[in-house]
Amino acid sequence: MHPFRAFIHNYEYLPEQVWHSIEPHLTVHNYDAEYPILKEGQICRHLYFLESGILRYFINNEGLEICKFFTQAPYCFTSQYSFLNQVRASENITSITLSVIWSLPRDIAFEFLKEPSWAAFIRKLTNEVQYLTEELLLASQSKTAEDRYKLMLTEESELITKVPMKYIASFLGIAPQSLSRIRKNVSLSHLLT
Amino acid sequence: MHPFRAFIHNYEYLPEQVWHSIEPHLTVHNYDAEYPILKEGQICRHLYFLESGILRYFINNEGLEICKFFTQAPYCFTSQYSFLNQVRASENITSITLSVIWSLPRDIAFEFLKEPSWAAFIRKLTNEVQYLTEELLLASQSKTAEDRYKLMLTEESELITKVPMKYIASFLGIAPQSLSRIRKNVSLSHLLT
Repeated sequence: MHPFRAFIHNYEYLPEQVWHSIEPHLTVHNYDAEYPILKEGQICRHLYFLESGILRYFINNEGLEICKFFTQAPYCFTSQYSFLNQVRASENITSITLSVIWSLPRDIAFEFLKEPSWAAFIRKLTNEVQYLTEELLLASQSKTAEDRYKLMLTEESELITKVPMKYIASFLGIAPQSLSRIRKNVSLSHLLT
Repeated sequence: MHPFRAFIHNYEYLPEQVWHSIEPHLTVHNYDAEYPILKEGQICRHLYFLESGILRYFINNEGLEICKFFTQAPYCFTSQYSFLNQVRASENITSITLSVIWSLPRDIAFEFLKEPSWAAFIRKLTNEVQYLTEELLLASQSKTAEDRYKLMLTEESELITKVPMKYIASFLGIAPQSLSRIRKNVSLSHLLT
């Protein structure tokens, strides 16, 4: 089964004929690490499915890159506001590792909302993304950078091993040196327990 | 026009017959300030429309209330994860001011997704909530509490006048004393410009 269809089935069963109408519109891309999939100022015209790899979303804040979040395969992604409103994106999406990505044109993604199964998949996925964003917001409001790093260690251990420390530090809103200190503390407390 | 229908029309036109099918399921509530609309541990069984008033979402974090965000009328709200998955809410929703709220049972909100106009309204609203949450996350990652407070002053000036300072401090992730200092700085810099 196509990896995108298998992913959709985690949310909603997509009947054969709906899938066969969508599939011809998919294009596959093999990107190197650090490939800019979307740059700030461009208009996002696709819904993407990340079959393998890891991405980072970031913005430029007075010359400093701020990492918003990471997307780890398999998952869907887009630059939501730009995609929905066809305005210039204020964010960048870049691959961190080698990535295999499928793109679906925006008009097709919208056209198929008339199909209840596709509409239900999009609704459930959007709800999940909303929930995950809310969780990140809550963590940034209620936890220290050290506690958030420890949470990533337990809940996203694979991500931690593959993402350069400078991006994780940026995501946690701290300097790379502070993250080094936190990592030393965490290693030390592991040795002591 | 019913205020909820007028609100929906900001996103999508709802035909007369769809509205007349939904309307009988709406119940109005007049709540005092500090009324607990949803408590942590309860299951959220309604989609709500806040006709007037202001709400706060908060969680209890080791005895400390952390304010996630505010909802200002007119807007829709629910405890999304609890509402969608019918599990116990991990958050509280409480009125800050006198509030007029309409509730719609969850099964009705779902049943009407078969109506394209209602489905489009829900989709657009969910996308907007996702965008706003992402903006809050980005602000918490890239701005100081002082800059975020200044942003609230310009973009949410009405909210600032109506919400007790202790809740704004909690939302900004700082102590009330720190917010007092920031407010003094801001007043002083206003006097100097």
